[in-house]
Amino acid sequence: MTMKVTPWEVSGHIDYDKLIQQFGTRHITPELLKRFEKAADELHFMLRRKIFFSHRDLEWLLDKYEKGERFVLYTGRGPSGDTHIGHIVPWIFCKWLQDRFDCEMYFQLTDDEKFLHDDKLSDEQTHRFAYENALDVIALGFKPGKTFLFTDFDYSKTLYRIATKIAKLTTFSTTKAVFGFENSTNIGMIFFPAMQAAPCFLPTELKGCNIPVLIPAAIDQDPYWRITRDVADKLGYYKPAAIHNRFLPGLQGPESKMSASVPDSAIFTTDEPKAARNKIMRAFSGGAGTLAEHKKHGGNPQVDTAYQYLYNIFEPDDAKMKDIHDAYKSGAMTSGEIKEILAKKAERFLKEHQEKRERARKSLDKFLLKD
Amino acid sequence: MTMKVTPWEVSGHIDYDKLIQQFGTRHITPELLKRFEKAADELHFMLRRKIFFSHRDLEWLLDKYEKGERFVLYTGRGPSGDTHIGHIVPWIFCKWLQDRFDCEMYFQLTDDEKFLHDDKLSDEQTHRFAYENALDVIALGFKPGKTFLFTDFDYSKTLYRIATKIAKLTTFSTTKAVFGFENSTNIGMIFFPAMQAAPCFLPTELKGCNIPVLIPAAIDQDPYWRITRDVADKLGYYKPAAIHNRFLPGLQGPESKMSASVPDSAIFTTDEPKAARNKIMRAFSGGAGTLAEHKKHGGNPQVDTAYQYLYNIFEPDDAKMKDIHDAYKSGAMTSGEIKEILAKKAERFLKEHQEKRERARKSLDKFLLKD
Repeated sequence: MTMKVTPWEVSGHIDYDKLIQQFGTRHITPELLKRFEKAADELHFMLRRKIFFSHRDLEWLLDKYEKGERFVLYTGRGPSGDTHIGHIVPWIFCKWLQDRFDCEMYFQLTDDEKFLHDDKLSDEQTHRFAYENALDVIALGFKPGKTFLFTDFDYSKTLYRIATKIAKLTTFSTTKAVFGFENSTNIGMIFFPAMQAAPCFLPTELKGCNIPVLIPAAIDQDPYWRITRDVADKLGYYKPAAIHNRFLPGLQGPESKMSASVPDSAIFTTDEPKAARNKIMRAFSGGAGTLAEHKKHGGNPQVDTAYQYLYNIFEPDDAKMKDIHDAYKSGAMTSGEIKEILAKKAERFLKEHQEKRERARKSLDKFLLKD
Repeated sequence: MTMKVTPWEVSGHIDYDKLIQQFGTRHITPELLKRFEKAADELHFMLRRKIFFSHRDLEWLLDKYEKGERFVLYTGRGPSGDTHIGHIVPWIFCKWLQDRFDCEMYFQLTDDEKFLHDDKLSDEQTHRFAYENALDVIALGFKPGKTFLFTDFDYSKTLYRIATKIAKLTTFSTTKAVFGFENSTNIGMIFFPAMQAAPCFLPTELKGCNIPVLIPAAIDQDPYWRITRDVADKLGYYKPAAIHNRFLPGLQGPESKMSASVPDSAIFTTDEPKAARNKIMRAFSGGAGTLAEHKKHGGNPQVDTAYQYLYNIFEPDDAKMKDIHDAYKSGAMTSGEIKEILAKKAERFLKEHQEKRERARKSLDKFLLKD
């Protein structure tokens, strides 16, 4: 299956090196990692494991930081349904960045985009999803007073004005080339890239002085930053820096997709822990056909869902991860056993997350930017 | 010169019958005029003189009115500079409609559009012009509490959400066909038709029940209502009705254009009365070459600027207008004399308007919708 990576569709076997080439981004080199480690005083496992594998202008950002210029984080979520585990990968990384660099985070919930893009969703629905998704962000422990969430509908007085400046410098031709828009694309979607670009310049607009911005997000969002970076100079803003993560596969295996409309495709943050366990137990496995074969030939961690979920999110300890890897690969650990490790961790995570998520309802207002 | 009529360019000799055909609007028939007169209890001179000459769904609007359904007015202004006399033609008509039908008026100031359209204008400039232009609207005597002015930038939280509903149903192809947009058009302009359509549905959104809307505006704005009417049904809104006026010529004659960048092309509401008089005295005249020739052959009211300005705006009395017409056409009245009549009226208008305009600064807030 041919690889396709756009903000609205990710399919096929993903060749991340090819993506870096196609998108014109940069590898995160060992030297850059060392520099990052020095600045942060430690290295997050998502960096060590190259889950964040690509960037734009990270050197520039560290230059600024080393000269004493604070940067802010910007990321977001398209609220088309419940949050799943794949969504929170960059958010967990953002939380670490906020803690290590003591930075502000701006978080955009694109209720407008999801309404404009999906014929089946009403604006009331995406707007409601936006505030449900916001609870997942807050539940991860971001700092109040330094973390600002907004939905496009409720913050559009501020965002629209910034977006018009970006839009004025962006032609339909450009959006055709960058996003594959067609003559049959609706004019809301055509304008939307300017709305997603706007928060890159929001901190600067709010504070009245140029502030470096770092965007941690999955690589499919990069086309937006290309447009944003093109206009930044002309508008007198810094170009936003970006750091890109890989996609977490769906529960049906390496090329499967997590989808809100297919409950078994993903673990959602609102799943009953018991239900999540059952999904994990049914997930695609890298084990051999029978137990005897598995004991003899071993499993394939690269395609095993449980292994991938542990590696990408639930087991930050490299030594433990290596033990699991070796045991599973040798056949000493069965598919059932590796799933059991993940299921326990996922159950515990969900139980705690859901408690924090409910508590977040009370503190939500403290995090919101609204017009 | 070929006729061209778009919201951003009006040029050539305007054939209004051809425009009705091209745009697919309707003539205002004598029967419809009678019905209008009955409902309003009088007929405004702009209707009697066919300055408002075309419409969409005016019969439907009167049906609704006769059944007891109140309608509201919607019109606006693109704030690219000072207001001139041509702009206020439909506003004067709106004031009469508000008085006769006791209706609310919604007035949009498209600071976003003028910024997006004109490379030389900043958003701060168009935003400032918007509030200056608003003073001209208020100075005409609209009722506080029934008249609501808003700039797109300052009301975009409300407008953007309505606009996304319209945009979702409007493709780039449609805007290409209707507005002549091209691949090189910026994505802000491409989205903008949804922002100009939004106020058609604003009264219904604010009140929660379907309210008929009548849009009095120059015929060049009709493309917007075509798009709006196309989506109205699908969104469950009434289609807006429209009534279209002709263009007032510039001071340089029938095919000349009023332009903020050419001071002598128009009388601006902020002109010193004396300066306006001087412009009128220099304006294009329909008189014969010499006084003797004029006395012999008479003047041509159809191309005479002073006559046209009296006819379109400054002399509502038909009997007086007929006297001026006959005297000028016969040669009994000179070009200097007809200009003198206009100059006196324009000076008086400007003096009074400018006093009201300054008083309007204090009451501006009472008229504004802001998010």
